[in-house]
Parts: sequence; C-alpha cells; structure tokens
Amino acid sequence: MYKIVFMRHGESTWNLSNRFTGWTDVDLTEKGVAEATAAGAVLKEAGFTFDLAYTSVLKRAIRTLWLTLDAMDMMYLPIKHDWRLNERHYGALQGLDKAETAAKYGDDQVLVWRRSYDTPPPPLAENDDRTSFNDPRYAGLPKSSIPLTECLKDTVARVMPAWDEEIAPAIRAGKQILISAHGNSLRALIKMLDGISDEDIVGLNIPNGQPLVYELDADLKPIRHYYLGDAAAIAAAQAAVANQGKAK
Amino acid sequence: MYKIVFMRHGESTWNLSNRFTGWTDVDLTEKGVAEATAAGAVLKEAGFTFDLAYTSVLKRAIRTLWLTLDAMDMMYLPIKHDWRLNERHYGALQGLDKAETAAKYGDDQVLVWRRSYDTPPPPLAENDDRTSFNDPRYAGLPKSSIPLTECLKDTVARVMPAWDEEIAPAIRAGKQILISAHGNSLRALIKMLDGISDEDIVGLNIPNGQPLVYELDADLKPIRHYYLGDAAAIAAAQAAVANQGKAK
Repeated sequence: MYKIVFMRHGESTWNLSNRFTGWTDVDLTEKGVAEATAAGAVLKEAGFTFDLAYTSVLKRAIRTLWLTLDAMDMMYLPIKHDWRLNERHYGALQGLDKAETAAKYGDDQVLVWRRSYDTPPPPLAENDDRTSFNDPRYAGLPKSSIPLTECLKDTVARVMPAWDEEIAPAIRAGKQILISAHGNSLRALIKMLDGISDEDIVGLNIPNGQPLVYELDADLKPIRHYYLGDAAAIAAAQAAVANQGKAK
Repeated sequence: MYKIVFMRHGESTWNLSNRFTGWTDVDLTEKGVAEATAAGAVLKEAGFTFDLAYTSVLKRAIRTLWLTLDAMDMMYLPIKHDWRLNERHYGALQGLDKAETAAKYGDDQVLVWRRSYDTPPPPLAENDDRTSFNDPRYAGLPKSSIPLTECLKDTVARVMPAWDEEIAPAIRAGKQILISAHGNSLRALIKMLDGISDEDIVGLNIPNGQPLVYELDADLKPIRHYYLGDAAAIAAAQAAVANQGKAK
C-alpha cells in the first residue's frame, strides 16, 4: 500500500481580497503562514515522513511547503518544482475582484467560469502585461504551452503528464511524497484518482492548508482518503472556499 | 566566461554562542536571517539571476538559501541538496564551547584542530548520541561515508566529487549557479579553484552571509573574485570569524 499527501497552499493575499489569482504570484497572508506551519506540526505529530516533495513554481505553494517542512524539521527534503502543478490559469479575470465580477456578470456567469469543467474565462490578450511569456520560470517552455486562459479540463490535461511521468513512477519506486499545490491542480489529481465525473468535480472544495492523505493500492487506486487535523477547522476552511466568488 | 556565486550561511546560534557546530543542525540567529535577506537584496540589485542552487542538508545553509531566494523573488529556483557540501565534521568537539575548549586545551591545540589541514579533532565514539548514523537525511549513505570527525583535508576529499560530478558539469552546461554552504566546504572549493596551498588555506576566512562571486574562464580557472556588498561589513564579518575560538 502506498500513501501520498496533498496540500492546498495556505490562505493567500488574493484569497483574502477575493480576487481571481490563477498564475499571479501572490504570497500567503499571516493566516496562510499559520496554516502551513500548523499543517507541518500535524504531519509531524501523526508520524509522517517524506522522501520527496513536489510543488508548483508559484510562491504561495512553495512557501506553504517550506513552512510545512520547517515545522517537520525536514528542510533538507528534496523538492521538485513543476509548472504543471500551477493553479488553473484564470485568463482575463486574473486580478479582478470576484465579488465585483459577480456583480457585473452575475453569479451564474461567474459560477460557470469558476465551476464549469470545459468553459474557460475570456483569454488574456497576447500583449497583456499579465501574460507569463516573459517570466523566467517559464523560459524553457514553448510559447504554445503557456496558457492565456484555462478551464478545469485544460488544467487536468497539463497536470496529468506530471502525474504519469513524474509522480506515479516515484510512488511506485517507494518514495513517500508530499505535494503542495493549488485548488485546481489538486482537483485534477483527485478527479483522476477517484474517477470523479466532469460534473461532480466542480463541486469538490479543497480547503487551504489541510493535509489530505490518500492511501493507494498497488495499482495506485485509492483505498481511502482523509484530512489530517481538526475536523471543525477543516469544515470551516471548506465552507470558506465554497463561498468565494459570490457577490457580497 | 562563467560566473558562480558562493555564500556562507548567515550567523548561526552556535556561531553566536561560540560552539563547535560541524554537522549539528543549528538554525540561524536573527542577525543571520537579516544577513541572508540582505544578501538576496544585494544579488538582486546587482542583477544576478540563477538557474540552479546547491546547498547542504543542514538548515543554516538551507534557510540562508531560502531567504536569499525569497529576497530575489526567485523562490521557484531548483535547489539540489548535497550532504557533501555540509560543514566539516567537528568530531567530539561538536557542541563544546570554543572558548572553554581553548581554556582547557590551550589556544594552540584548538588552533591546530581548527586550522591544521590534516589533524582531525578526536572522533565521536560510534555509540555517541551525536553521530549521524540514524539521521534520515544520511540514510542512503554507507556507514563508512558518515564521518565521526574530519580535518579540512577530509572535507576537501568529500566536497571535490560534488564539484567534479555535479557542479562543474552544470557550469559547463551554461547554468548560473548559487551555492549556499559552510565555512569549510567553501574553503575546500576555493582551495581547489585558486590552487591555494595546504598551509595557506587554513588562514582564509569566509564571512557569514556575503555573496562571493567567482568569474571563471572556459577551463573553470578563476579570472577574478570579489564579494558583493558593503566593504566595511564584509571586513567586519571576516574579522569576527577569525576571532572565533579564542579564549575570552
């Protein structure tokens, strides 16, 4: 039997200000820092150790991982950064306030953009300052791989090769793995692992900063999964995520 | 022409309390944190960017690197941890106060242990709690590779394969590299690069938390080297290191 631990980054400044973030490289809030440190304490208390961690190239996931490893006294853990674990790209909505966007377009349209499986938000223009074309962390990629917007289906399509080529072989090789990533890149992985339908995956809310343990059989099929830590805190964190993006 | 940047970790708690540290995994002081953050600011201001960083498996070097990368807004940089970049192992002196040790054995004996090229301090006993045999970060190593004490010559012997097998090929491949390490693992690299004699290397003091730039020719021979940052601060940091280990 294998085990893997997923963790969504702690609260970010744009979670707090309720903006569409996507690939924008915002940092954690103080609460997010505390969540990440608490996650490390919970993992240590439960006796978890790791051989390898994966994260995205976005600092809210990286700092969450660093703080978690620091709290576990495992700062020496090898870390692999993979852009394919980035958050879903939010296109032209990146930087916009979710409540304002909802007030302008209506809750229904925003819910489609947020939660439809295959309807992406409007794309960024190629000459928009918000594109990632000139960001050194993506310099090794063909321009065609750098999104201007994504629906969840697009995110799944880029996350899956990271699982198939990197993470799954490492699990099979016996590595204990921690993944610090984002709401939608984790949804992509969970959709695949649990065989969740295109319709149902959009209703799955992953709370910030709560370690989510998957136990997998020899074929990497889930046996069970559970969050570590305080149940009330996890429920509150899930409710907070579900309420993001509604007009105030 | 190639460039590589070396950095000794910021001040550690045992630099401050003047203890022999070696492989003991002590953290940075507040001053050490500030030094590492300042180093990142200096590197950013000078326009440095990197493709890859190397560090040891000891948290004072790792945290220095993390803080430096955070200040450079490059938290996504790939980091390779290599135990061969660890500080010189200080044997049975690890944990002892330098001034007390000097008062007991005399400045001369301590200076021999600190600065002789080939005289190691007394080794740890195999059953000493301070050995690294049961530390998970060294679990992949044969027991014979885990030192019980080291002279600088021993440190050079284990650092050089990391250079030859890992770092030098990466430089030749065009990677811009930052190395966050320790006084003696950096001495080992500098001894090799500059062809410094066994006698002279022991007098070379590397200050905490100051980026040291080496410009190398096509054969990786040094053209010149220099510290980045404020000259007075660098001189003061060098003097502080030279004065460690003297009886008060």
